[in-house]
Amino acid sequence: MPRPQAPRVSTRRWEAGAWREAPDQVATEEPLQLSLGGRPLSIVMRTPGHDLELALGLLYAERVIRGLEDVAEVWISAEADETADQVPVRAELVESNQVDLRLREGVPGRRPERSFLSSSACGVCGATTIESLQLDFAQLPAGPEIDPAVLPGLAGQLRSQQRVFEQTGGLHAAGLFGLDGRLRLLREDVGRHNAVDKVVGRLLLDGLLPASESLLAVSGRAGYEIVQKAVAAGIPLVAAVGAPSSLAVATAQGFGQTLVGFLRGDRFNVYSAPERLG
Amino acid sequence: MPRPQAPRVSTRRWEAGAWREAPDQVATEEPLQLSLGGRPLSIVMRTPGHDLELALGLLYAERVIRGLEDVAEVWISAEADETADQVPVRAELVESNQVDLRLREGVPGRRPERSFLSSSACGVCGATTIESLQLDFAQLPAGPEIDPAVLPGLAGQLRSQQRVFEQTGGLHAAGLFGLDGRLRLLREDVGRHNAVDKVVGRLLLDGLLPASESLLAVSGRAGYEIVQKAVAAGIPLVAAVGAPSSLAVATAQGFGQTLVGFLRGDRFNVYSAPERLG
Repeated sequence: MPRPQAPRVSTRRWEAGAWREAPDQVATEEPLQLSLGGRPLSIVMRTPGHDLELALGLLYAERVIRGLEDVAEVWISAEADETADQVPVRAELVESNQVDLRLREGVPGRRPERSFLSSSACGVCGATTIESLQLDFAQLPAGPEIDPAVLPGLAGQLRSQQRVFEQTGGLHAAGLFGLDGRLRLLREDVGRHNAVDKVVGRLLLDGLLPASESLLAVSGRAGYEIVQKAVAAGIPLVAAVGAPSSLAVATAQGFGQTLVGFLRGDRFNVYSAPERLG
Repeated sequence: MPRPQAPRVSTRRWEAGAWREAPDQVATEEPLQLSLGGRPLSIVMRTPGHDLELALGLLYAERVIRGLEDVAEVWISAEADETADQVPVRAELVESNQVDLRLREGVPGRRPERSFLSSSACGVCGATTIESLQLDFAQLPAGPEIDPAVLPGLAGQLRSQQRVFEQTGGLHAAGLFGLDGRLRLLREDVGRHNAVDKVVGRLLLDGLLPASESLLAVSGRAGYEIVQKAVAAGIPLVAAVGAPSSLAVATAQGFGQTLVGFLRGDRFNVYSAPERLG
């Protein structure tokens, strides 16, 4: 049974020098144990819901799996209430807050040498040396042409579609948009990069990767991991409401991805590959 | 040689339907390879600077070390330009962006069974099963009494003291304050939890742990990892400018830590242990 995404808590509020009781809601954060063939691989601090997407998207972006055909079965907690037509899902065998991916025999499944762990904003999972950050993703192809006038609308749609953010202030959103600026998919999570993993996982399940005719917008800042995951998914443009980091800019430049930051009101900044925006 | 915390980049700005060139600055994010006795342990995506504090604070909060006496030597990249009176620092032997902690012989140094990895917001490092999230920290003692009127000033101080945030919008800050609300220590990083690790590492170097007469304020949200690190440091109150998560609230309640969220203007919410605030 899915848990509430925003449990109520009792709080006291201090305002202008006086106390009052104030019930509040907070965003749910729980650890997800991610395993590969029964062996613990990672703990992801995440907001429950869409755990199958999260696991698939994370492992796809980390190149542990290259596609659904690498997955033999997914063992996932019954409470997650997940089903899928594309991969066999077994719910009877694992405890709460767990996903265990069983790979097909013969799949190399570049399992990280050691366990990797991630939290609500981890993105360098599986890499045990700096050298291994050298990503083996493909360079993004030139195009498509994207109308810059489409972008200012994305942040507003992201915000207006968020079901939980307004209540808690604690969830990040990742939205996938068409080139016309229409929202196609929205995911929310305490971790910005989890929301992106869920989007990528859904695209993988739906056979829509690489998502070369789409735009990704995220509600917060754009660090390295957001760009890396979008590159893995073949998304040509990432737009963040907040600031990018230096490594995000360098990675986007390296793979030919258009990186937009400070998407607010009628303005935004472009940090890489501006040619797609005409 | 320390690198700039906010390198300049050339960007194009879209504003009200037109392009213009706009130089910008972005916050530096680089991977730090953290090793223990020469074996890779973790990659931390962080803003360079105070790497010694970061490594010590992270490993202290994860209970890999219990104090400076567990540390025999720190091997750290010469470019980090780090020195310390309290631990022997050797800079000649490691490459860029690396810290290698050498533990004293006989120190069990609860090395995680497997490598752990963290990024600019990872906080569950070293735990390979959900069970191991059960933290072995001490319950915080009752007290001290904290004047609620002190809190509204913390966020403003944090912001006004931040050297880089105003330029890039991309750095988080963690500030340690006295019970009188005076700022004692400020650290900035692309990762909120890295900034907290740097504060804890500095307190460890200065022999000031547990920091039972202090307040910690952070510029963003309060997830599990922020609370966990503050509990490890014995800090009785954590105040976040943003929202807390459910697991942050539960962890603070479990350890008797006062957790404050939405610290803005003259108001804030208290999610746990309100008794310290009178």
